Amino acid sequence: VDVGADFRLAAEDYPEWYGFEHPAPVWIDKAAYGITELFRERIAGSSLVANPGCYPTPVALGLAPLLAAGLVTPERIVVDGKSGVSGAGSALDPRTQFASLDGNVQAYRVSAHQHTPEIELALELATGLRPTVTFVPHLVPAVRGIVTTVYASLAPGTETSGTPLRQALREAYEDEPFVRVLGEGEAPNPKHVAGSNGCELAVEVVARSRTAVVLGAIDNLGKGAAGQAVQNLNAMFGLPETEGLSAIGVYP
Amino acid sequence: VDVGADFRLAAEDYPEWYGFEHPAPVWIDKAAYGITELFRERIAGSSLVANPGCYPTPVALGLAPLLAAGLVTPERIVVDGKSGVSGAGSALDPRTQFASLDGNVQAYRVSAHQHTPEIELALELATGLRPTVTFVPHLVPAVRGIVTTVYASLAPGTETSGTPLRQALREAYEDEPFVRVLGEGEAPNPKHVAGSNGCELAVEVVARSRTAVVLGAIDNLGKGAAGQAVQNLNAMFGLPETEGLSAIGVYP
Amino acid sequence: VDVGADFRLAAEDYPEWYGFEHPAPVWIDKAAYGITELFRERIAGSSLVANPGCYPTPVALGLAPLLAAGLVTPERIVVDGKSGVSGAGSALDPRTQFASLDGNVQAYRVSAHQHTPEIELALELATGLRPTVTFVPHLVPAVRGIVTTVYASLAPGTETSGTPLRQALREAYEDEPFVRVLGEGEAPNPKHVAGSNGCELAVEVVARSRTAVVLGAIDNLGKGAAGQAVQNLNAMFGLPETEGLSAIGVYP
Amino acid sequence: VDVGADFRLAAEDYPEWYGFEHPAPVWIDKAAYGITELFRERIAGSSLVANPGCYPTPVALGLAPLLAAGLVTPERIVVDGKSGVSGAGSALDPRTQFASLDGNVQAYRVSAHQHTPEIELALELATGLRPTVTFVPHLVPAVRGIVTTVYASLAPGTETSGTPLRQALREAYEDEPFVRVLGEGEAPNPKHVAGSNGCELAVEVVARSRTAVVLGAIDNLGKGAAGQAVQNLNAMFGLPETEGLSAIGVYP
Repeated sequence: VDVGADFRLAAEDYPEWYGFEHPAPVWIDKAAYGITELFRERIAGSSLVANPGCYPTPVALGLAPLLAAGLVTPERIVVDGKSGVSGAGSALDPRTQFASLDGNVQAYRVSAHQHTPEIELALELATGLRPTVTFVPHLVPAVRGIVTTVYASLAPGTETSGTPLRQALREAYEDEPFVRVLGEGEAPNPKHVAGSNGCELAVEVVARSRTAVVLGAIDNLGKGAAGQAVQNLNAMFGLPETEGLSAIGVYP
Repeated sequence: VDVGADFRLAAEDYPEWYGFEHPAPVWIDKAAYGITELFRERIAGSSLVANPGCYPTPVALGLAPLLAAGLVTPERIVVDGKSGVSGAGSALDPRTQFASLDGNVQAYRVSAHQHTPEIELALELATGLRPTVTFVPHLVPAVRGIVTTVYASLAPGTETSGTPLRQALREAYEDEPFVRVLGEGEAPNPKHVAGSNGCELAVEVVARSRTAVVLGAIDNLGKGAAGQAVQNLNAMFGLPETEGLSAIGVYP
Repeated sequence: VDVGADFRLAAEDYPEWYGFEHPAPVWIDKAAYGITELFRERIAGSSLVANPGCYPTPVALGLAPLLAAGLVTPERIVVDGKSGVSGAGSALDPRTQFASLDGNVQAYRVSAHQHTPEIELALELATGLRPTVTFVPHLVPAVRGIVTTVYASLAPGTETSGTPLRQALREAYEDEPFVRVLGEGEAPNPKHVAGSNGCELAVEVVARSRTAVVLGAIDNLGKGAAGQAVQNLNAMFGLPETEGLSAIGVYP
Repeated sequence: VDVGADFRLAAEDYPEWYGFEHPAPVWIDKAAYGITELFRERIAGSSLVANPGCYPTPVALGLAPLLAAGLVTPERIVVDGKSGVSGAGSALDPRTQFASLDGNVQAYRVSAHQHTPEIELALELATGLRPTVTFVPHLVPAVRGIVTTVYASLAPGTETSGTPLRQALREAYEDEPFVRVLGEGEAPNPKHVAGSNGCELAVEVVARSRTAVVLGAIDNLGKGAAGQAVQNLNAMFGLPETEGLSAIGVYP
């Protein structure tokens, strides 16, 4: 399981998004993309897994079932991400000092963040449809936790109650130990999943603009990084996926 | 200057968005909508000003010049709002307790927030174009400050460097004492305007999706409420708009 | 195991500190005071355990070995406590709203906090010496965690290097799974023990005033409440004390 | 007005507390120590003012009138300080990163902080009595603000109601524009003085240990640094001390 970004994109995307020519594209082809719930079978048969980025995980988990069911359209998807500061690593940086971040909300890499093509590819792998995604991440004054807010147009014919979309998420994840689909009017809470491998998802519809709003919350260090890596290892070795991942969230 | 929401919308919108029949629609017609920079002349001639909501202010300030110049299209605009907790008032609420909000980012009123029609109306008043807006607000762990992230499609023909959009904002606000247009790669910072009547704006373009991302930051208690009310009073009485508003931001 | 305060003090102290006559003093006599590391044997033989208050736990753990060894004197001990807000319970209160507590440090119950006699009694039970304690708690802008700073005079003859005091703490807790004694120059960190039953202790000496400064950190919801209750249950039933308490800290 | 520490101590204290031999002790003798309310006359006649450290300011303001009136004794004074992170300057440091400080309370320089002799000297200059101070500072998760909690023994004969102590503070500061003495049961709040040159003081008595607890709150960047420097400049030049200091606190 590679927890870096070396096997997450197609080889031809590396120059544009990471600034280098990929030196071993053959290994990209062998790697399974590791959102366990979506690509479990491929992961089980792989000897190399590309552990996903933090933002793509809740976005793909929330959007893939809706796209696959034809409830939303793949064009012009907007992803607005909010992340706690631990996603930025431990390097010293003026922007991550307490005095800078406390009381602040800061958009970054607005015109091009490298998780954009990863989100598109993850969704394409999961659904066969190639979406167009605009993604803007924001740093918020929290240590752990990511919340993603996804805006996608309802497909023609999808009713605006939100019920079919919630139903699609429920069916996709009803047997999943780490994914919890919330009811109408509930919003995912990163504190519920802090320190755990959990993911909370919710979907609402804005009827007047026929827009689905898909919300997701994870701990960026759990389901967004190390937790999902362990889950993938379990899947690769045929162990129960919950092995080593029994921790429930610690409301911080 | 009315600092509530009683004169912000058209009379016919009150039942849907505020749950009551407006009792005095004639006063709505007399009221000027109070984003001072956009509606200064109308405000100066009015005896009643509807002070705007906190979210609509940076959204309209950032988007109106781009719409008016035909650089972006009014269809399918997405507004993702992030607000500090003082916007929620001082009523005791489990969601605004420190233990609930610290480390949290919480979407609320996802399917219908009453600032949605206000944003649309403000933009229509300013540009003559009626946009369709999807607006989702989020509560973030901060006391003061609002950051708005607006996603709008570039109009056909608009080049993707971002330069024409920044230029349009610069021209609109070059003589304004309270609005600061940032350069490429800079993101508005609510700490820069805390305790003041200031507003920071920036715009970037995501070239691959031909999307303009318009960012705004204000102090929701300053330019988003009391500060703008004072600015409007100054405009109504022919005083310098900066009167009583000399405070610069206190980096909190 | 009673997790309230009903059996923590002597019966005659309840009118002064809790405002009521204790209705069942016979049960107080039967109850063991439940700081497990200090009163393990008595707890194992009891059918009722008074689970300690959050502040007394790190104070007594840090001070008892020093008092018992005669390294510090029991007179005029000052305890300055800092607590996260979860110690205040979940009742709605203006002081625990995010907008009130963020950026704040607030002393409370300055002249008389009910943990004062509990600290004195715990130290007396552990050492046979009756100390005089002045205790002032403060609310800090954090959810979990308590840090206590204890000031005690060195006994005549105690050298001022700090080494004998650190040694006394190390010997007292070298076999304890939940107590970690830090080295010179290190300060206990409540983030290290968040979500766990751990306790970090350190001691330094201010030579010029011949004062020992004993620092402690716990999670007030862990070792300061539910964690210690489970540890006490384990001790009562002869189970390994770590049973059910395997969680390590989640750096929040 | 020197805002560093170069003229705050006696020349002979520099080797021990700052690690260097003072190169110009003659200037120390010429410098006035700049807590304006306590040393106003000396400041007015000086051409060099040593602007005080942040911690000594609220400690000396709160304690000097009580010592001078003989209400508390100068022996064994304990000062427990809590400071927001801006007091640490803007240098990048792992301890001041958001992920380190959020949710944390961290004692530092426990055995010897250089503000200890400054507090003692300030009190001696103000009262003629030389106190012995034990001072431990703590970093708390806030940007601005200092709260100091001072523990001093009541002098023999001082009654324990707290009234004479509050009265002494009230008399000392009744005409001061920047110092506010709070009533019984009220605790100084750093949010009330954020962004301003204000100082809040309160005193309570713990009767059973005959200890006065003197609480102070300032903005470490205001009354604790730049604000007091401006106030001192005003005093030096015979201007109204409030000149340039009209800002009231911004509740952050």
